[in-house]
Amino acid sequence: MVDVILNGEILKTVSKAMVSLVSEARFHFKDEGLHSRAVDPANVAMVIVDVPTSSFESYHVDGEFVAGVDVNRIFDISKSIRSDERVELTVVDETSLMIKFGSVRYSVSLIDPSAIRKEPRVPQIDLPAKIVMDAGEFRKAIMAADKISDHVVFRTNSEGFFIEAEGDVDRITFHLTEAELAEFNGMEARSMFSLEYLKEFVKIASPGDVLTIRLGNDYPGRMIFEVAAGKVKVEYILAPRIEAE
Amino acid sequence: MVDVILNGEILKTVSKAMVSLVSEARFHFKDEGLHSRAVDPANVAMVIVDVPTSSFESYHVDGEFVAGVDVNRIFDISKSIRSDERVELTVVDETSLMIKFGSVRYSVSLIDPSAIRKEPRVPQIDLPAKIVMDAGEFRKAIMAADKISDHVVFRTNSEGFFIEAEGDVDRITFHLTEAELAEFNGMEARSMFSLEYLKEFVKIASPGDVLTIRLGNDYPGRMIFEVAAGKVKVEYILAPRIEAE
Amino acid sequence: MVDVILNGEILKTVSKAMVSLVSEARFHFKDEGLHSRAVDPANVAMVIVDVPTSSFESYHVDGEFVAGVDVNRIFDISKSIRSDERVELTVVDETSLMIKFGSVRYSVSLIDPSAIRKEPRVPQIDLPAKIVMDAGEFRKAIMAADKISDHVVFRTNSEGFFIEAEGDVDRITFHLTEAELAEFNGMEARSMFSLEYLKEFVKIASPGDVLTIRLGNDYPGRMIFEVAAGKVKVEYILAPRIEAE
Repeated sequence: MVDVILNGEILKTVSKAMVSLVSEARFHFKDEGLHSRAVDPANVAMVIVDVPTSSFESYHVDGEFVAGVDVNRIFDISKSIRSDERVELTVVDETSLMIKFGSVRYSVSLIDPSAIRKEPRVPQIDLPAKIVMDAGEFRKAIMAADKISDHVVFRTNSEGFFIEAEGDVDRITFHLTEAELAEFNGMEARSMFSLEYLKEFVKIASPGDVLTIRLGNDYPGRMIFEVAAGKVKVEYILAPRIEAE
Repeated sequence: MVDVILNGEILKTVSKAMVSLVSEARFHFKDEGLHSRAVDPANVAMVIVDVPTSSFESYHVDGEFVAGVDVNRIFDISKSIRSDERVELTVVDETSLMIKFGSVRYSVSLIDPSAIRKEPRVPQIDLPAKIVMDAGEFRKAIMAADKISDHVVFRTNSEGFFIEAEGDVDRITFHLTEAELAEFNGMEARSMFSLEYLKEFVKIASPGDVLTIRLGNDYPGRMIFEVAAGKVKVEYILAPRIEAE
Repeated sequence: MVDVILNGEILKTVSKAMVSLVSEARFHFKDEGLHSRAVDPANVAMVIVDVPTSSFESYHVDGEFVAGVDVNRIFDISKSIRSDERVELTVVDETSLMIKFGSVRYSVSLIDPSAIRKEPRVPQIDLPAKIVMDAGEFRKAIMAADKISDHVVFRTNSEGFFIEAEGDVDRITFHLTEAELAEFNGMEARSMFSLEYLKEFVKIASPGDVLTIRLGNDYPGRMIFEVAAGKVKVEYILAPRIEAE
């Protein structure tokens, strides 16, 4: 039903992205590639993962197959796979997923997809500000902000993009000017987000990865990461937090 | 009574091997070299360590000397020794062992050997299957199996050597064909072992080390590791677990 | 009021040195450079830190400025700074210290200096023995001694410098002859010190750093570390412990 070959980094990235929000998910093996999306139990964030067929070494799927996956388990297994290792995923009957790498063969039971929480519709939201930047820099800013606060303000204006967090006795500002950003459309925006989520999101990011952020005013933000050497697209949509004036 | 010089890696390996099963042991400084063996308190496993005189930089022992050693303590000290460091072991009177390396000199009290549990006789068991393989590969398989179960099946047949573990929802198979093994005599065997022990045993193993496994049917298994650049031989004999049908 | 530029390693070292004894301290920005000193709450040890202006990339201070600093906070922030990163410290009004590196700007509230414990006078003590040695070697000896005891004896005689610790069943001696020391004036001395303090002190030391030790008989010891490529001088003065005969 499914027989695909990919490198370890892709599987590691996909499972890390999904496990940041859910413990079970539907993996859609489609004509265009692998797709998965889910909303966290608190309905605060959505993750959307896409791996086009061109990112696979080989990709054979009979029609479309939907696998109900124990994401924690896959994430766990992926930790023992090297990034440059060749991994084969096979589904022969509907009950189990086979993961082969080196001399190792894992067989993981699949979950009935209908037993997994219904997938979200991807919201169509119009977000004025657009920033394109290095995902590694973003990760550093989030990790630093997380040390002093539990929420962070993203804002843009003519001076560029600001990430700001405030602790009891200190404040951190991360500032990139238009010249330091890969792209910025100059639009003003300002929203506050929870660092509890953001610090999970950035775990997939490495220096050199491209991150596109779309931002509005007290509105959900979109963060689109192109990771694993551009082979995996992970989009996060995160609800804003209310700023107390 | 004893004055020997060896490199740090040997001492680190010997103490790591012994500490996997016991906290006290007899170290025999003999004409042929250093020998130690012990059975764990639960009588499930035996360890036999041999370091021939040729593995020492210098080896002077008056007759044979039996040192009662606090293995935990030696293991602890060995952690602060570099693998390539020159270490001198001396016993002047019967009460203490001196360990010298760099500018450091440790003096560790010896234990009266008669106060240490009697040493086991090494069992003469005939085990049909013989496998020779890379100890690093074996280590990887054991560590992976340990993530999903607390026991593992070793089996051989005409297709090669299999290590199999089964979790609640998943199963891992590690398979090496005859071509992938350094040596295999083609004999069939099958026994189940506890991962609690195996995961301790493999701590001494590095890629490139040679491991010889002898296996029977529901019978103890023997694992002979040649480690520390071949300078130390560590043999483990492990009782099987009963497979529930 | 203050606007200075230094490399990350200096800030990391200064905060690590101070945080070993206190959580708040006065940072004096003087004509000659940055100076800070403090005594721990138990009055057992003193730390004196000096960074001459020549160690800064740029150094602009209007007269002298005394900043009351939350040392824990600065230490925390310094962990996210790379050693080779350029850091700018600015104080504009008396209420906050700005720390800039890369795209990050931290603003940390200052503490009213008069609310911080009065600074100690540096004692004038005459200590006969003088030893100059590699700080990394000293660190290794202290870490090893700390594994078996909570106090250590420093002693010197015609054979050189000894660091000795005694555990319940073992003893460690660290011995450097005059030839192995960078400098030794041959004077005899012997004092016992608490490892609880020493193990904190050595955290700033790396191999290649120069350490000068001054020692008397049952008298406080002085340890002067030249660290961060010689750019920071950290002196510790430590009260002796009484040796039970």
